[in-house]
Amino acid sequence: MLQDDDRPESAFDVATAVRRGPDGGFVAELDRGWDVGRGILNGGYLLSVAARAALAESTHEHPVALSGSYLRTPAPGPAALAVAPGPSGRTLAHSVVTLSDSGGPALVVQTTTATLTGAAAERDRPRPDVPPVEQCVSLAEHAHLAPPGLTVPGLIHRIETRLDPATAGWALGAPSGEPVLRAWLRFADDREPDPLALVTFADALPPTSFAMGRFGWAPTVQLQVLVRAVPAPGWCLVEARGGTLADGWHDEDYAIWDSTGRLVAQSRQLARAPR
Amino acid sequence: MLQDDDRPESAFDVATAVRRGPDGGFVAELDRGWDVGRGILNGGYLLSVAARAALAESTHEHPVALSGSYLRTPAPGPAALAVAPGPSGRTLAHSVVTLSDSGGPALVVQTTTATLTGAAAERDRPRPDVPPVEQCVSLAEHAHLAPPGLTVPGLIHRIETRLDPATAGWALGAPSGEPVLRAWLRFADDREPDPLALVTFADALPPTSFAMGRFGWAPTVQLQVLVRAVPAPGWCLVEARGGTLADGWHDEDYAIWDSTGRLVAQSRQLARAPR
Repeated sequence: MLQDDDRPESAFDVATAVRRGPDGGFVAELDRGWDVGRGILNGGYLLSVAARAALAESTHEHPVALSGSYLRTPAPGPAALAVAPGPSGRTLAHSVVTLSDSGGPALVVQTTTATLTGAAAERDRPRPDVPPVEQCVSLAEHAHLAPPGLTVPGLIHRIETRLDPATAGWALGAPSGEPVLRAWLRFADDREPDPLALVTFADALPPTSFAMGRFGWAPTVQLQVLVRAVPAPGWCLVEARGGTLADGWHDEDYAIWDSTGRLVAQSRQLARAPR
Repeated sequence: MLQDDDRPESAFDVATAVRRGPDGGFVAELDRGWDVGRGILNGGYLLSVAARAALAESTHEHPVALSGSYLRTPAPGPAALAVAPGPSGRTLAHSVVTLSDSGGPALVVQTTTATLTGAAAERDRPRPDVPPVEQCVSLAEHAHLAPPGLTVPGLIHRIETRLDPATAGWALGAPSGEPVLRAWLRFADDREPDPLALVTFADALPPTSFAMGRFGWAPTVQLQVLVRAVPAPGWCLVEARGGTLADGWHDEDYAIWDSTGRLVAQSRQLARAPR
């Protein structure tokens, strides 16, 4: 499939594509390449697929608020998406999207779509100071240093991830002890970011517990992503912060700025604590 | 109705009660006293009603993650709650709750329930320093100073709200210019806080834009509340921070600590910007 400019369609667009199914809903082909290890698909990737289905049924252009409950880990391969439309108006539209595989519903998402205009922010959250991309640590290039037993996720080959050296100690054998990760992100095939990409970026870093030297998987239970602006072309800066860890639960906050330094998305998730 | 200890049932428990309806769902009586002005019911209050319905269908005791999409403003009076159960296990259970009034669905909520054990936090977020309750500014006692045109919400008579003087300037005619509010909260009838109360507290302060001298209503579009621990008896400290304001949208973050200084809940909402 070729786009208007004859460039091959991006891996992200292919992997998140939805088309009308036989029963009025949508179907997608979940791509095993967007996994966080052992074929477990990334939660942000799944949320982008659900957002595409919501947009296909909306008069608006952008997903501005998505809250997903992760019921089960869906298998790579065919998936069905049912969109239950809610109220829709000039400012915004609501829907509930259910993504299912052959085992049943896997992800249920409250969606709010709207049309972002690109107007300048009246109040913004400043981007933290991070060294330029070329001075940051490529996750893909350091994958061979992964701690024993840690599976290297496919995701790091789809999304170029350049860690701020101040938060990259864990990848080099010296965890910082602070649950914070910062990285420049862009798609490996140079597809430019857009609101759908931000939805994936909003869950694309390793668990912040990695920075504490705990390398277990931290399954997401509920993830909310807010898209605040259409990002400019180029690298996005993503900061993830772990919050409270108690009773087997922990929360993570993401903030994402585009190449101009504008805050373009934020997310919060509740996850099970890694072992 | 009397409780075991012969104390009258609290206003909050009466206003959020749900009972089995004729069609297998639940019914509630939305109490106009929990409004934010002009009979518009508070979003946190509505979320607590939805959480009660989720708990009534769950094997677990506490709402740990709730994400609600506010479709319409429901009228005070009778409401119906439909609970669509999702997967349920030893650790947690999912459901989707729809709250409707005679005009149709008004609020759809993704719910995750679990049972919090009270174990000490492994990592916590420290409570900010705020003067003791008796040195803080009672919203109810200063209601007569409300700016012209601002309706005094019923909520401030249900929830005792004592603002940190550092964030109370707007209530005394001198907005701080920073979108931050901090206050000690407890129910006016001394009912002790619990996880359901935290769900209401997570949206109980005035819009943070009030601290900027903008007194318009800021309708919530999507609200996520995470409950992290069962609160100890006594006053809770609630901090609300406004984030990015752009394109007619703004976000607010809440953090809530109990009387022992433990973080017990957090929330994030996307709202329409006040005029």
